[in-house]
Amino acid sequence: MANTTKINVRYNETDAMGVVHHAVYPVWFEMARTDYIKAIGYSYSRMEENGVMLPVTGLSLKYKRPAKYDDDVSVTVRITRLTPARIEFAYTITRCSNNEILVVGESAHAFVDASTFAPLNFKKAMPEFFSVLEREAQKDIQE
Amino acid sequence: MANTTKINVRYNETDAMGVVHHAVYPVWFEMARTDYIKAIGYSYSRMEENGVMLPVTGLSLKYKRPAKYDDDVSVTVRITRLTPARIEFAYTITRCSNNEILVVGESAHAFVDASTFAPLNFKKAMPEFFSVLEREAQKDIQE
Amino acid sequence: MANTTKINVRYNETDAMGVVHHAVYPVWFEMARTDYIKAIGYSYSRMEENGVMLPVTGLSLKYKRPAKYDDDVSVTVRITRLTPARIEFAYTITRCSNNEILVVGESAHAFVDASTFAPLNFKKAMPEFFSVLEREAQKDIQE
Amino acid sequence: MANTTKINVRYNETDAMGVVHHAVYPVWFEMARTDYIKAIGYSYSRMEENGVMLPVTGLSLKYKRPAKYDDDVSVTVRITRLTPARIEFAYTITRCSNNEILVVGESAHAFVDASTFAPLNFKKAMPEFFSVLEREAQKDIQE
Repeated sequence: MANTTKINVRYNETDAMGVVHHAVYPVWFEMARTDYIKAIGYSYSRMEENGVMLPVTGLSLKYKRPAKYDDDVSVTVRITRLTPARIEFAYTITRCSNNEILVVGESAHAFVDASTFAPLNFKKAMPEFFSVLEREAQKDIQE
Repeated sequence: MANTTKINVRYNETDAMGVVHHAVYPVWFEMARTDYIKAIGYSYSRMEENGVMLPVTGLSLKYKRPAKYDDDVSVTVRITRLTPARIEFAYTITRCSNNEILVVGESAHAFVDASTFAPLNFKKAMPEFFSVLEREAQKDIQE
Repeated sequence: MANTTKINVRYNETDAMGVVHHAVYPVWFEMARTDYIKAIGYSYSRMEENGVMLPVTGLSLKYKRPAKYDDDVSVTVRITRLTPARIEFAYTITRCSNNEILVVGESAHAFVDASTFAPLNFKKAMPEFFSVLEREAQKDIQE
Repeated sequence: MANTTKINVRYNETDAMGVVHHAVYPVWFEMARTDYIKAIGYSYSRMEENGVMLPVTGLSLKYKRPAKYDDDVSVTVRITRLTPARIEFAYTITRCSNNEILVVGESAHAFVDASTFAPLNFKKAMPEFFSVLEREAQKDIQE
């Protein structure tokens, strides 16, 4: 099921244009992924303890309107694809005060071995976590 | 003509995976764009003095291998599209020590009025700068 | 009255040592200041609308223990000095799970004109806001 | 001997005040330390390969004037104190175009074991590197 993270814009996230710098939004995507995984009962930390990392392999963003200092924004994330080797997420960032869509985007990730960065089969590495992800992915893709 | 910027990886650009955080590469793209514009005799600052800003409207990245602390990397940038309203760039980041390609990506930008953020016709706003960009874009697209 | 802000550590705030990079803590101080000012009924944005900015003129930090990825930390801030020209804050950052003190620090700020950066008399610029700050500062200094 | 690092201000280092955000300067200090250590023939990476890390234990900054986007700044660093357990540096950041001093500051560091973060005796851990530091520290303190 899609999950939403609330963020208040920090001063250092703005730039001399007076708006949030474009390289900040991928950080917010990451926070939303982190919360998504917590919301389904797991965590990145627990993956790392199991020797699994989930680096970003692809990222794309469309910037529609800028966020500003002290804006409350919400980042909604859902899974768009899941295999034992890869996972993909889609994101929508909106300004809470007026529901304007600010940024939409996608990220792709590979499940890798934390010490060698070699690809691994996540379904085998953490079978219970994988089946929870699979169940959520099905809901997300239907939404 | 494509232009190349050299960057030495800063410690704060790494994360707990021991490699450069994925949200840093868009910052390096921006540095390369800045240098490109300087290499052809202009600057962002001069655009801003003329009331023009060039916000990012789209961004995409493919992450192939991670950069590490203290790596020297080079970011090569070229123009892939230019109209009076928009400009697009493509980037290749390589590790200098072994010429491995680390990240490739693209960015799209709109020419806007610095005070209103409304779209503007850059060919009319700064005609000489536009014609220099046009000349470079032709070279870049042929490369 | 001292105010406390809760922060969950972001992945990009860590570095290759596996802990939060030392340049991140001043950002957390700033968030705590922002929340302090909100807690007493005002905001930085409102100061800026009134043509006042509050740049940092001095900063000091003692690092005792590192925060780690996904830690919940709390930043407690109080005013230590207030004049019509200047304000100073003190901060304590603790890890919520075990109450360990991680970082302590102080910041000094000048009230300046937002367009010229020239010093200004904040008691004259925003008298009601100044008197609220004065009341809070008295409580904080007694604590 | 004091060493100087040149830095060109990145767009993302500015904030909505139109100047460099105050939390960026500690990053520039770190770059200057890194270059200092390279200038005397060593590197952080080599320390880490020898199981030594050098976390920041204290930091202080005085902000005199702001740096702006695209400014070229120079960061001069020298050692102010050295023992087998600790090292301290002092920094001066100036704007290259007019030699204005922008920020001055100091940092304190402990030599620690990279795996346990326990204090270690650096003179014993890397005796040759320590004696080079000692020689440089003497010059710096006399300057």
